Amino acid sequence: MSVVRRNIARTDLAIVDALASCGTATVHEAMGRTGLMQSYMRPIWRGARVAGNAVTVSVAPADNWMIHVAVEQCREGDILVVAPTSPCDAGYFGELLATSLKARGVRGLIIEAGVRDVMELEEMGFPVWSKHISAQGTVKGTLGSVNVPIVCAGALVNPGDVIVADQDGVMVVPREQAGKALELSQTRLDKEAKTRARLAAGELGLDIYGMRDALAAKGLRYLD
Amino acid sequence: MSVVRRNIARTDLAIVDALASCGTATVHEAMGRTGLMQSYMRPIWRGARVAGNAVTVSVAPADNWMIHVAVEQCREGDILVVAPTSPCDAGYFGELLATSLKARGVRGLIIEAGVRDVMELEEMGFPVWSKHISAQGTVKGTLGSVNVPIVCAGALVNPGDVIVADQDGVMVVPREQAGKALELSQTRLDKEAKTRARLAAGELGLDIYGMRDALAAKGLRYLD
Amino acid sequence: MSVVRRNIARTDLAIVDALASCGTATVHEAMGRTGLMQSYMRPIWRGARVAGNAVTVSVAPADNWMIHVAVEQCREGDILVVAPTSPCDAGYFGELLATSLKARGVRGLIIEAGVRDVMELEEMGFPVWSKHISAQGTVKGTLGSVNVPIVCAGALVNPGDVIVADQDGVMVVPREQAGKALELSQTRLDKEAKTRARLAAGELGLDIYGMRDALAAKGLRYLD
Amino acid sequence: MSVVRRNIARTDLAIVDALASCGTATVHEAMGRTGLMQSYMRPIWRGARVAGNAVTVSVAPADNWMIHVAVEQCREGDILVVAPTSPCDAGYFGELLATSLKARGVRGLIIEAGVRDVMELEEMGFPVWSKHISAQGTVKGTLGSVNVPIVCAGALVNPGDVIVADQDGVMVVPREQAGKALELSQTRLDKEAKTRARLAAGELGLDIYGMRDALAAKGLRYLD
Amino acid sequence: MSVVRRNIARTDLAIVDALASCGTATVHEAMGRTGLMQSYMRPIWRGARVAGNAVTVSVAPADNWMIHVAVEQCREGDILVVAPTSPCDAGYFGELLATSLKARGVRGLIIEAGVRDVMELEEMGFPVWSKHISAQGTVKGTLGSVNVPIVCAGALVNPGDVIVADQDGVMVVPREQAGKALELSQTRLDKEAKTRARLAAGELGLDIYGMRDALAAKGLRYLD
Amino acid sequence: MSVVRRNIARTDLAIVDALASCGTATVHEAMGRTGLMQSYMRPIWRGARVAGNAVTVSVAPADNWMIHVAVEQCREGDILVVAPTSPCDAGYFGELLATSLKARGVRGLIIEAGVRDVMELEEMGFPVWSKHISAQGTVKGTLGSVNVPIVCAGALVNPGDVIVADQDGVMVVPREQAGKALELSQTRLDKEAKTRARLAAGELGLDIYGMRDALAAKGLRYLD
Repeated sequence: MSVVRRNIARTDLAIVDALASCGTATVHEAMGRTGLMQSYMRPIWRGARVAGNAVTVSVAPADNWMIHVAVEQCREGDILVVAPTSPCDAGYFGELLATSLKARGVRGLIIEAGVRDVMELEEMGFPVWSKHISAQGTVKGTLGSVNVPIVCAGALVNPGDVIVADQDGVMVVPREQAGKALELSQTRLDKEAKTRARLAAGELGLDIYGMRDALAAKGLRYLD
Repeated sequence: MSVVRRNIARTDLAIVDALASCGTATVHEAMGRTGLMQSYMRPIWRGARVAGNAVTVSVAPADNWMIHVAVEQCREGDILVVAPTSPCDAGYFGELLATSLKARGVRGLIIEAGVRDVMELEEMGFPVWSKHISAQGTVKGTLGSVNVPIVCAGALVNPGDVIVADQDGVMVVPREQAGKALELSQTRLDKEAKTRARLAAGELGLDIYGMRDALAAKGLRYLD
Repeated sequence: MSVVRRNIARTDLAIVDALASCGTATVHEAMGRTGLMQSYMRPIWRGARVAGNAVTVSVAPADNWMIHVAVEQCREGDILVVAPTSPCDAGYFGELLATSLKARGVRGLIIEAGVRDVMELEEMGFPVWSKHISAQGTVKGTLGSVNVPIVCAGALVNPGDVIVADQDGVMVVPREQAGKALELSQTRLDKEAKTRARLAAGELGLDIYGMRDALAAKGLRYLD
Repeated sequence: MSVVRRNIARTDLAIVDALASCGTATVHEAMGRTGLMQSYMRPIWRGARVAGNAVTVSVAPADNWMIHVAVEQCREGDILVVAPTSPCDAGYFGELLATSLKARGVRGLIIEAGVRDVMELEEMGFPVWSKHISAQGTVKGTLGSVNVPIVCAGALVNPGDVIVADQDGVMVVPREQAGKALELSQTRLDKEAKTRARLAAGELGLDIYGMRDALAAKGLRYLD
Repeated sequence: MSVVRRNIARTDLAIVDALASCGTATVHEAMGRTGLMQSYMRPIWRGARVAGNAVTVSVAPADNWMIHVAVEQCREGDILVVAPTSPCDAGYFGELLATSLKARGVRGLIIEAGVRDVMELEEMGFPVWSKHISAQGTVKGTLGSVNVPIVCAGALVNPGDVIVADQDGVMVVPREQAGKALELSQTRLDKEAKTRARLAAGELGLDIYGMRDALAAKGLRYLD
Repeated sequence: MSVVRRNIARTDLAIVDALASCGTATVHEAMGRTGLMQSYMRPIWRGARVAGNAVTVSVAPADNWMIHVAVEQCREGDILVVAPTSPCDAGYFGELLATSLKARGVRGLIIEAGVRDVMELEEMGFPVWSKHISAQGTVKGTLGSVNVPIVCAGALVNPGDVIVADQDGVMVVPREQAGKALELSQTRLDKEAKTRARLAAGELGLDIYGMRDALAAKGLRYLD
């Protein structure tokens, strides 16, 4: 059954924006090392860092019809998350769809498939994380669903989850954990700032983190 | 039998240049979604967009001898297209060969294998699309052929076909279809320009393309 | 048995620096086409070219404890070379470890696994060649070894070997061959400079390298 | 937070067994083409066809501690489903664990990682679908969870879902849909039996399925 | 434009059958090491060795409609060769289609995509070489073509070419070269039979093939 | 420089044979989880389990000349270990070479590349572990070396090391550690036999290995 869910809960954009500034590596640690998509999801242009509320799309292989359907469900601060029902490298998305999403305030696209018009997307400043880049076109013949739970690049994404994406990858933060994830991320960043200063001054992690005893206890031996 | 075909028919560079400006995604659509190489063919540096007449080279694995032979067959406006007879990631091509090709007016290289000297190639502004980047050297011991039909990255390339390559991939346009492909591409671009303006103004693809009835007929359901 | 070898022989940095300026493709040829890591080892940012003395680290999958141990063994002019005992794409290394290595004069990281904080690493100017980029965190629970022989991306690396890395890949030069490798590399560069000038002037490699007779002897045929 | 959920709802084994006899391809079609794991999940020996109730395990990379924990939660008719939190090809599982599972009536293992002792597993008649085969050992140092929702090979698996696995792959049937899936699968099998007889007698699918008009309407042309 | 070509030239089955008995490795050598499909094309069951006349099918990704169209074009001694227009691992083909093909005397299937019902196909004795095995279903919505030239797994296949397939892979013999390929294959087999006897008796290839001088001339050194 | 080392030290075949009967998983554990080749090295036929003394061969891509050279260096109880200097899937080895090796008492082949004639190799009972299967032929034009240290599938192999190979993969045991590895392997097997009996009787690994306290200490929680 193909459905489009119109009303989904979203997270306040102040929290979403703060998560973006923490970055995926920090949020991933704060979340107990869960929620990261596979490492083959790469940004199509260098430098983007965004966060947004997920509008999810399940599409048929090489068929982008449901992306057109999904556009209407997007609003300011959203990120479109697209996964095909079987692996496909076709170019589901290009600058026309990006133009449409941009007009609605959408912040980016996460797609476990291919995209095209990558130079134009960079010039528009529209961020995309994809598995492939390909000029290959798609058809419009098979239904899928919008705003249902999907698995994208190995991660479960529920509509309304917060997506954080940067040059290190793509994180999914379940909506109900977004506030807590932010709090833990900021604590972690504060701590890292102090560690960074000590490391820059030449102190060793072995000493700062107090690892020497544990290493010796495990049996590590030093040879000259 | 190893052969070098000296005389091949080419396409007028005015048509070739116009195809370059259309880009691979557009030309691919205009061609009925045929002729695209596999998506693992990637530009070694960012921003190149070229078109040219194909000089084809069939090479042995890890043996670049025939590329040296092929250089002599190239002229202004050509693109060298190289495929090994079995998969190989060695670096068949570097800045010396590029220097030689550039001196003959060649516009770029398409190779389903590896290249090296990629910083130098970018500094020279010599465009390359390859499957791999590798410093691995090759030998000169086994013959191949120049200007015979080859399969490169899943696409059939006949000598004299028009190659269009940009950040979205590499397209092969059969020589006899080049004029028609250009005409259809330009029609498509004109149409897209109008659509783009409407999408930027906030209209939905669902309405512009008139998709709502077809979606409903297929059974798409909206839930609140 | 997990060990850390403290004293390793290194190569004079004058030789190391000169090898860096030759580049991997040239040094690879000078070494008889040996010592190159697999082509999946790619720079995480564009433009880096370095050489240094290898401090080697054997790590458990998804466990970066031994990298912290290895930092203490590094000094000015070193490059850290890390290989997991089974394939892993986790992000073993980020900007905190880079800060620590930089404070010790380390020139870069070669890792057959993942790294994270790639934007920060680029901003710091800290060069990394890796197999993956991933925000995925690692644990600190299993010992490994520092400064033992390791296999990294298909190449044997002994502690103290010279690593040369640029946009074409990563080369390992056995320590005792570093001087000879430099000498042969420089000879090769001199020769290439002359060839480059002739090629740029339009001469053909077929003639410069005297290939025509050998091609004919092998049976190459020219057709019109 | 690492948890082990002890009480999970399961499906009656009569339904589970009937689903096994339908096979993955049929159940996949009956489920609207959803729920299939990625095609890299392959049986380690030829001929197995099983179904069972899922006990799920989330494990750290190269750490099989939680599989030992999960054994205790298994009972007659279960299938263990294991996914690492980042990709790993290590051999998490061998004949000792299989001996233990067999003693509890467990019907098989689905693991998005590696297994070892594959000859012994075949001799025991213990079915396994895995992504890799590897003798590589694992550690016991990091917690995970048992009977939480996991993503395994691209499919969401909730504890208690029905797993159907055969030579074509691995299907996940959400527990609440098991009865309906069976009903639809059996209807499909009945229909296919009739079609098979007609095809074997030489009738064409073009005629049986009445495709000729639709093909003509789409513009298919026959040439002599 | 989607077309079905009804009349294609085929090769006499006596020649086809004789090529089957030569095997792919021998025919590949006889053909000057051309015409081999990529090594990812593997038999789905062990032991099949066939040859036949190619009926080619170009299909859309995850859409098997044209295979139904192609069945009607097949006759005794044919092999169906299927390639999607972009990479796809879906299961395009199962035992119902095999039943239909078998009723027409078709000898096997070569498909650069997925198949399902692999146990049933083995029980039927219907040989298949594919890139993937997957229960994933396909749709019937987009046209393709039958009996046009296609690229399948890196090899150009024209309708009516002879396909030879065994446990070593899949070979394409252009129709007009089939007789010559057979003659050269048989000569090669005769020669190998003699060599085999000498090798079995303990003679060395170094002596039988007279390689020692060439090795020494190249500079090979023996050390004690 | 290409060399053939004629005299290498080997391990007594009694020890070698005993290692074969232990299997790769056990020997790998006994060796501290080192020495395993990558998991893409797979047996070409089901059921083989062998051990032997390594004769190593470094070959050029798609060039099997040095395998012919290596045959002469082999004797009763050896295993040939072959690695190309850059990745290659060509079929370096078939039944003629196997006939020659068999005549000399060689027990099998380990090759990080392709082989062909796989049905014939199975019929001969000649065991092979390879990365690929391919009918693709190779040339005889470039020298390599025999009995030098090589890296094969991620593992360092010195001539005379003991190779143990079975359905779980391929292990390299450094020659000087062969006796110790055997001793530790047998101890491990004895211990496993006892554990197996207890597991088969229904005892849990959690209790046999005494894991419950450690799990609780790490914070594992049980929920109902």
